[in-house]
Amino acid sequence: MAALLDAGAPDFEARFSALLAQKREVSEDVDNAVRAIIREVRTKGDVALCDYTRKFDRFDITPAKLRVTEAEIAAAWKACDPATLEALHLARERIESHHKRQKPEDERYTDGVGVELGHRWTAVEAVGLYVPGGTAAYPSSVLMNAVPAKVAGVPRLVMVVPTPDGKLNPLVLAAAKISGVDEIYRVGGAQAVAALAFGTETIKPVAKIVGPGNAYVAAAKRQVFGTVGIDMIAGPSEVVVVADKSANPQWVAADLLAQAEHDEAAQSILVTNSAEFAAEVSSAVTLQLATLPRGNIASASWANFGAIILVKDLEASVPLVDRLAPEHLEIESDKAEEIAGKVRNAGAIFIGSHTPEAVGDYVGGSNHVLPTARSARFSSGLGVLDFVKRTSILKCSPKSLAEIGPAAVKLAEAEGLQAHARSITIRLER
Amino acid sequence: MAALLDAGAPDFEARFSALLAQKREVSEDVDNAVRAIIREVRTKGDVALCDYTRKFDRFDITPAKLRVTEAEIAAAWKACDPATLEALHLARERIESHHKRQKPEDERYTDGVGVELGHRWTAVEAVGLYVPGGTAAYPSSVLMNAVPAKVAGVPRLVMVVPTPDGKLNPLVLAAAKISGVDEIYRVGGAQAVAALAFGTETIKPVAKIVGPGNAYVAAAKRQVFGTVGIDMIAGPSEVVVVADKSANPQWVAADLLAQAEHDEAAQSILVTNSAEFAAEVSSAVTLQLATLPRGNIASASWANFGAIILVKDLEASVPLVDRLAPEHLEIESDKAEEIAGKVRNAGAIFIGSHTPEAVGDYVGGSNHVLPTARSARFSSGLGVLDFVKRTSILKCSPKSLAEIGPAAVKLAEAEGLQAHARSITIRLER
Repeated sequence: MAALLDAGAPDFEARFSALLAQKREVSEDVDNAVRAIIREVRTKGDVALCDYTRKFDRFDITPAKLRVTEAEIAAAWKACDPATLEALHLARERIESHHKRQKPEDERYTDGVGVELGHRWTAVEAVGLYVPGGTAAYPSSVLMNAVPAKVAGVPRLVMVVPTPDGKLNPLVLAAAKISGVDEIYRVGGAQAVAALAFGTETIKPVAKIVGPGNAYVAAAKRQVFGTVGIDMIAGPSEVVVVADKSANPQWVAADLLAQAEHDEAAQSILVTNSAEFAAEVSSAVTLQLATLPRGNIASASWANFGAIILVKDLEASVPLVDRLAPEHLEIESDKAEEIAGKVRNAGAIFIGSHTPEAVGDYVGGSNHVLPTARSARFSSGLGVLDFVKRTSILKCSPKSLAEIGPAAVKLAEAEGLQAHARSITIRLER
Repeated sequence: MAALLDAGAPDFEARFSALLAQKREVSEDVDNAVRAIIREVRTKGDVALCDYTRKFDRFDITPAKLRVTEAEIAAAWKACDPATLEALHLARERIESHHKRQKPEDERYTDGVGVELGHRWTAVEAVGLYVPGGTAAYPSSVLMNAVPAKVAGVPRLVMVVPTPDGKLNPLVLAAAKISGVDEIYRVGGAQAVAALAFGTETIKPVAKIVGPGNAYVAAAKRQVFGTVGIDMIAGPSEVVVVADKSANPQWVAADLLAQAEHDEAAQSILVTNSAEFAAEVSSAVTLQLATLPRGNIASASWANFGAIILVKDLEASVPLVDRLAPEHLEIESDKAEEIAGKVRNAGAIFIGSHTPEAVGDYVGGSNHVLPTARSARFSSGLGVLDFVKRTSILKCSPKSLAEIGPAAVKLAEAEGLQAHARSITIRLER
């Protein structure tokens, strides 16, 4: 059973702090192993890539076969269930329409003293997308990473995906195809990250790497950061459901379990103002667990990391939510909009009883790659902004330089940077 | 003397690649020392902070004296030269006006099938600003970090600055005062970063840490990343000047030296289509070096890392610039706008002969914290976006959920996530 915390109890602050400080992941120390793999790939290129693939993914491979061919992609497409492909299409369209609205605008203006200022956004020239293999190969995750990159205008989008024992989920290739991925390579692990960052004979290097992965992939991303850009390092998924008696306890239970089935380290928390409602949800969770294919995983997550928090009114949930800074926040109450407007820290908010978080995982249109492990306090979900960068622009005329230059000279001198000062005065002397 | 590379020479690609791969910084391995310092501060709080300050900054300190008082700030203000304060005010105003235009907008809309989507931007709740002590204590850097944070609406902005031997640059305090910093503590190094990330009795923790620092500070920022957000890790500064014979060689030389005086590891590169102009700039650099207070530093930077690259026409500079991805790009030519429009990778572009980069360091209005070490390929300069984060919003009605829900169920089932599917079907059954 999940923990029950009462915000009115004297030990609440201590218990809530403990909940916040709880470690849900054992971070394996794979840094040295990863460092060695990266070194090998940098030195030996394709040969190292093929060696590691033989060793870790257990199938024979040569450099010429690293890239997944058009014919293989076409064959995978035919192997997919048409109705699922149709759902994938709907998802892609909705993600694309929504993300198109995120494209930032260039600006250029002249200020009061005649200085021209502005900025120009440009797409990252090449992006690598890591897609986990095996059971965690989720086509929806391909869409959520690839579509925003293409909307941003990334000209070269390279996918890497491990194919353990040579096997690859056809839906993953289908998702790559409809989202415009330009190149696909059947490699994974730290070796794939190294290839993307430094390049090999077959795989040209990229400028940024995104996408989820295991401990090796995460460590490799951290190590190549600086050489290339990386997205966030994703932790186990989590949801906070804020609900009152106007909500349906069966539905709320289903939502808590949808999160819990991801991973034993996932976390589902209910915050409610009704002890009765809390008990109803709790019973519904137990009942629904019995018929869930991934019941063992969901059950472990709920028992170890699940929590029900009782508050005096929903308003009182806001400061707790801000401290939890959940990846996903569902608010099921007539006051949902009001509460949502007061929250500062959450990756995404799902408003009202008819917006289960799972709809956002697939077809809502917004991105499902969201900040985990309380990082919504300082970061945002994935979007078009992650695939563009801003170049600022400044242009002075002789007149506007004469206007603002002397103040810059003053400050440069105060900082002891005479060459800075001279680069301005030399132009003012004329 | 700087290296001379001719883009038409057969060995050019090899030499240019070597220039790109050049390491300008020896990265000290201070990870273990930093890990120990962070552990001490987490365990012992203020006591550890005071111990390290006594040891590294050589002055006696108690927890009660960690915070810089209002009276000290007022006294520092009075100690500053009024003309410099006026320049600081102009800089602050210009930075503020420019950054106000960067505030992103919230959005909420209903799509064709009745799904409501949108996002809301909120400021990071608390930000720590690291300011280096000693000679590198630049008031302009305080403005460039603090003003965008305040424009973003950060309610709590905390500055830490080491005060070696108890000494603090009055202008740094003045800059903090006029940019709205809320709390200032006289601590620095990895211990200050640890205090900001985890909190002590005196310093409450923040959610994000920005600002430049030495190897210890950079290592500490990397280690606390995840617990808090961090900005980029800044490397040595760099400029590329693209110029033709229409430019003034004396001015260009002054600009190359303004960059070179920062640091022996700084880099100044001239790209030009005229061998004659290149020779004129080169002579001017030598002449100007002779009268430069920081001549030794600038001279070492120019000799070790400076370069002049000859191209057949300025157009040919664009792909080279994109590979260099410089922090600062000056274009001094009649074709400056045209060239600027074609560049993909640069932190900031300074257009025309009357826009020396140094004016942007202080009073241009745009930010001087820009991506170094080729990271302009994937990242942007500091701005308001670094101090806000986006919460996405989704809201379905019974009708719109019925519209898009079945596709989500299809995809959830394809991914083997039955609890995800159930959280939708349970709502559609009604």
